[in-house]
Amino acid sequence: MSAARTIDVSEVGLRDGLQIERTMIPAEQKIALIDTLSKTGLKKIEITGFAHPKVIPQLADAETVAAGIKREPGVRYAAFVPNARGAERAIKAGIDDLKAGVAVSDSFNRLNVRMTTEEGMKATDEIAAATKGTQSRLVGMIATAFGCPYEGEVSRDRMHRMMDQLLGHDAPIIYLADTTGVANPDRIRRTIEDLNKHFPDATLGLHLHNTRGLGIANALAGLDCGIRHFEGSIGGLGGCPFAPRAVGNICTEDFVHMAHEMGIDTGIDLDALIDAARMAQEMLGRTLPGMVMKSGKASELHAMDAQRVKVD
Amino acid sequence: MSAARTIDVSEVGLRDGLQIERTMIPAEQKIALIDTLSKTGLKKIEITGFAHPKVIPQLADAETVAAGIKREPGVRYAAFVPNARGAERAIKAGIDDLKAGVAVSDSFNRLNVRMTTEEGMKATDEIAAATKGTQSRLVGMIATAFGCPYEGEVSRDRMHRMMDQLLGHDAPIIYLADTTGVANPDRIRRTIEDLNKHFPDATLGLHLHNTRGLGIANALAGLDCGIRHFEGSIGGLGGCPFAPRAVGNICTEDFVHMAHEMGIDTGIDLDALIDAARMAQEMLGRTLPGMVMKSGKASELHAMDAQRVKVD
Repeated sequence: MSAARTIDVSEVGLRDGLQIERTMIPAEQKIALIDTLSKTGLKKIEITGFAHPKVIPQLADAETVAAGIKREPGVRYAAFVPNARGAERAIKAGIDDLKAGVAVSDSFNRLNVRMTTEEGMKATDEIAAATKGTQSRLVGMIATAFGCPYEGEVSRDRMHRMMDQLLGHDAPIIYLADTTGVANPDRIRRTIEDLNKHFPDATLGLHLHNTRGLGIANALAGLDCGIRHFEGSIGGLGGCPFAPRAVGNICTEDFVHMAHEMGIDTGIDLDALIDAARMAQEMLGRTLPGMVMKSGKASELHAMDAQRVKVD
Repeated sequence: MSAARTIDVSEVGLRDGLQIERTMIPAEQKIALIDTLSKTGLKKIEITGFAHPKVIPQLADAETVAAGIKREPGVRYAAFVPNARGAERAIKAGIDDLKAGVAVSDSFNRLNVRMTTEEGMKATDEIAAATKGTQSRLVGMIATAFGCPYEGEVSRDRMHRMMDQLLGHDAPIIYLADTTGVANPDRIRRTIEDLNKHFPDATLGLHLHNTRGLGIANALAGLDCGIRHFEGSIGGLGGCPFAPRAVGNICTEDFVHMAHEMGIDTGIDLDALIDAARMAQEMLGRTLPGMVMKSGKASELHAMDAQRVKVD
């Protein structure tokens, strides 16, 4: 399979990023950043999560954020929901895409959301049931899809059962998440080949972390396998609280930059996205790992005199 | 062409890295780091450069470094040489591999070494002549092989002429350098395909920078094209003084980690290499960009209790 010429990028920094930041960002600042992102050409933005406020205090303002944003036509606004209660709240808040994420690894799922994988899958059934007859839809997330820091290799059979379940609920996209950044390009390819073989009608996406510096290389492996749906965090912010020495998702604008350089269309205004990444950086008050916002695009030509460095 | 199962990694941090660091590292510290690297299984280590000391003061101790290291049998010690004078010094110092680098882009080459590409190629002829009848050999470097920050696309004809020249001098490896980090996986593939077609007997290598976060993805594209020779800097240190807002080479241990995770043999003891990266970090007194030295290897399993985070 060859690389798609048009891909779909989903921004998850406001949820996967902010949920582990120590800094509590006021709702109005989140809203301002989401409104900026809505004008970049992104078609999917994960704006918050509907977990219990005690579990993820950084996202305790979920309803306020959802009510405060200016919804851009054509943009789908998503949120992470761990259970039926979260689904009800998200639906009431008018969230388009409810992200239901369960880890293939039992150990990881228990640490992450205090449910076994089996219990998590039951919660997904309840989330799916909650969306029935509403404008909201369930989007699938299979966490630790490429390995677990506690268990190592994950069970392919378990992953297949999760795929079956999500497809049974008509999940329009199923994101395979490298939650703790243990994937490598080979494992990405083998996993996608396996799932393509067993579930030819499924639409797969990749949710990658850059924990070991392989995030963008893993995304390239996914592109080469024909994957069209990718998630990232602007500036590379984010991470996972239970991942050993976790770091963030792949940097959205660095990934979009690579795609554009390769002639792949994202529908995104990269300059506007870089501006949004700088806004996120200011909001958090620290330098984020994104590279293109510092180096500029590869296609930007520089004047020679401006770069002259004294060498003698 | 499919990925090689055995690759050859060359460490260039002591030259490409240190030449732009503001910190002047004493020769004995460089020697200690090189001696540590010599025991990691690396077969190629670029230890210094023989430019005029006024041009690159950080490498003014080239002779002292070359004389001070303990040479490990089977390891080739390399150095960058800009001209005949540098070649004579390097040969006298017992350097195995003389790296002669010329940029395809005239603008870049003039800024970098104050010679046009044509003059640089003449210098390469002189370096090659100097190695005749010695134990030293010429290794080729084509800089700005994937684009120039001042000129944009580089001429393929010019690159072919440089290949012809280097092959005429029996260069055993010709490294294609993405000097300022403007490459993308597609351009890497197209360039390698073109050179493989026109120069089927050449042995190509990749010297990549991570300026825009694509270094490891570009290396993956090279691996996929069957490239077997790669350069990197431990910890990701390094860069280029004339590259606009330059950052370092790809991080050697992060790249080796990826290769090992993909089942590709490098002959390198990754744990020993990570220790060397930590040593480089201490030597420079600042956090280097390498990721695996912070996160640990993907294959390392973690105890669940050690990672428990309070969530309520």
